[in-house]
Amino acid sequence: MAKYAIGIDIGGTNTKFGIVDKDGHILKQDRLLTNEPEGVQDFIDELHTKLLPLIKDAGDIKNFAGVGIGAPNGNYYTGNIEYAANLKWKGIIPFAKMVSEKFGLKTKLTNDANAAAMGEMMYGCAKGMKHFITITLGTGVGSGIVIDGKIVLGHDGFAGELGHTIIRPGGRMHKGTGIRGVLESYASATGVRETALELLAENPDVESLLRDYSINDLTSQSVYECAIKGDKIANDIFEYTGQILGEALANFVMFSSPEAIVLFGGLTKAGDLIINPTRKAMEANLVQTFKNKVKLLFSDLKEADAAILGASALVWE
Amino acid sequence: MAKYAIGIDIGGTNTKFGIVDKDGHILKQDRLLTNEPEGVQDFIDELHTKLLPLIKDAGDIKNFAGVGIGAPNGNYYTGNIEYAANLKWKGIIPFAKMVSEKFGLKTKLTNDANAAAMGEMMYGCAKGMKHFITITLGTGVGSGIVIDGKIVLGHDGFAGELGHTIIRPGGRMHKGTGIRGVLESYASATGVRETALELLAENPDVESLLRDYSINDLTSQSVYECAIKGDKIANDIFEYTGQILGEALANFVMFSSPEAIVLFGGLTKAGDLIINPTRKAMEANLVQTFKNKVKLLFSDLKEADAAILGASALVWE
Repeated sequence: MAKYAIGIDIGGTNTKFGIVDKDGHILKQDRLLTNEPEGVQDFIDELHTKLLPLIKDAGDIKNFAGVGIGAPNGNYYTGNIEYAANLKWKGIIPFAKMVSEKFGLKTKLTNDANAAAMGEMMYGCAKGMKHFITITLGTGVGSGIVIDGKIVLGHDGFAGELGHTIIRPGGRMHKGTGIRGVLESYASATGVRETALELLAENPDVESLLRDYSINDLTSQSVYECAIKGDKIANDIFEYTGQILGEALANFVMFSSPEAIVLFGGLTKAGDLIINPTRKAMEANLVQTFKNKVKLLFSDLKEADAAILGASALVWE
Repeated sequence: MAKYAIGIDIGGTNTKFGIVDKDGHILKQDRLLTNEPEGVQDFIDELHTKLLPLIKDAGDIKNFAGVGIGAPNGNYYTGNIEYAANLKWKGIIPFAKMVSEKFGLKTKLTNDANAAAMGEMMYGCAKGMKHFITITLGTGVGSGIVIDGKIVLGHDGFAGELGHTIIRPGGRMHKGTGIRGVLESYASATGVRETALELLAENPDVESLLRDYSINDLTSQSVYECAIKGDKIANDIFEYTGQILGEALANFVMFSSPEAIVLFGGLTKAGDLIINPTRKAMEANLVQTFKNKVKLLFSDLKEADAAILGASALVWE
């Protein structure tokens, strides 16, 4: 009798995976660098190699009901990863089929952010909610939308690409898509780094601890460290990021009127520094009917857990 | 046995109403000016006075199953009209209850644009579709979102206020809400008029037929009439409007991945003049997964019919 599922979360930088039981306990987990293996088959082979000892620890492959995967541009209906801007695998990849063949297990795949939303709904701070949106502020910006207790997949399975919505028309060009002014170009770790470089260049006379970092070492983490020390430019970077993120969240609220928006991913480590300007800009741009209603929450699941748990939940559906 | 429903569509300018049978035939219809009666009770009294002869023509009040209403900021869950920016009735109005008391009929109410979307789904060009969005380009910009064959109401019944989403941050101020840069300030009849005044002022040396109209008479209709005569500024106005509308539609597509977007309302009379720049801007701002997939349609229901039909359909649910 199958007791376990494999949950895999493929991100732009890291791929995290774990052995999960039916109650949502992650028994073992590990990770690998997404873009290190040469091609997609090499990636799957390495994933298999790393998972084999974990599977053996859990008894045997017979104890496993299947594999659930969250991946950028993953399509639940087809099991394909299609044109993922943040991955080096280009075009349409029949990923679920390839994993199923390698592991000999039933495999289901969905968008990485949809998997995270499912994890939040089943085991996280959105437990019991029927209408919410999760936004991942990581290397990129992902999103999972839940309406009436169901993940929104849309006509073709690709719904919920909120990181690619336009919020600064004519603004920064997204390196993956060539489209200007999208949310992901601002409210991601990459976007915060770019904002930092811009503000430092535009304000050569303003002292900043950020100037002690080499351009290569300047990350959203360095911005956070300088901001909590009171650095003005570092704080301005979070104000600017929160303003844009808040405007975008207002747009999302006026689309689906959720009970809550759940934020997670690397940028949320900045806590109040990011949430306060975000909330302020969101409220300022909501029409009366939505004001002071929508909860803005940080995920209380451990960083990788929501996506691994959500991916594993696909197996039990 | 009840055979008929009353369908009422309350718009910023006109209120249209009709007697509808179960098969979606509008037997009789009429209209009144929404903001002419003094207050909301006067409005309902006048509506009743105008409907009484239509009800008598249909035999008797006993033949009626109820009243269905589409209204700006109408809430399906509560039956209230709440803080409608385009109506002169302010605050929270228990509209369905007031109508029910006046008519002695069961009354259901929803957002005007949701009613229109329901009309499109049951009797219009979205028949059979499970995922689509309707956008009304009238005095304001309304929207109805259908996902998995159901109108999206959201946590509190107010979902689908896409006219209030921000697409030109820091841009024109919306006179009803005070919020800057929202879609309704550009892609409505009011917005087109404002764009016309701006472009005429910014280009004093460019000849335009639009300068023959008095400022009071300059409407989106005059812009259309001049555009088909080849007037440059009039054509630029539609290009500008379509650019902004197309960007906004791209955002909506990346939210819910619909099969189609159905446009209706006064501005759609401009036909290719508005749809071509809109489609171009939408496609240019969609990431690969969505390109060349989404149908952009004009409603094939008569202008008022979709909303009246959709409102009446609430009665039969």
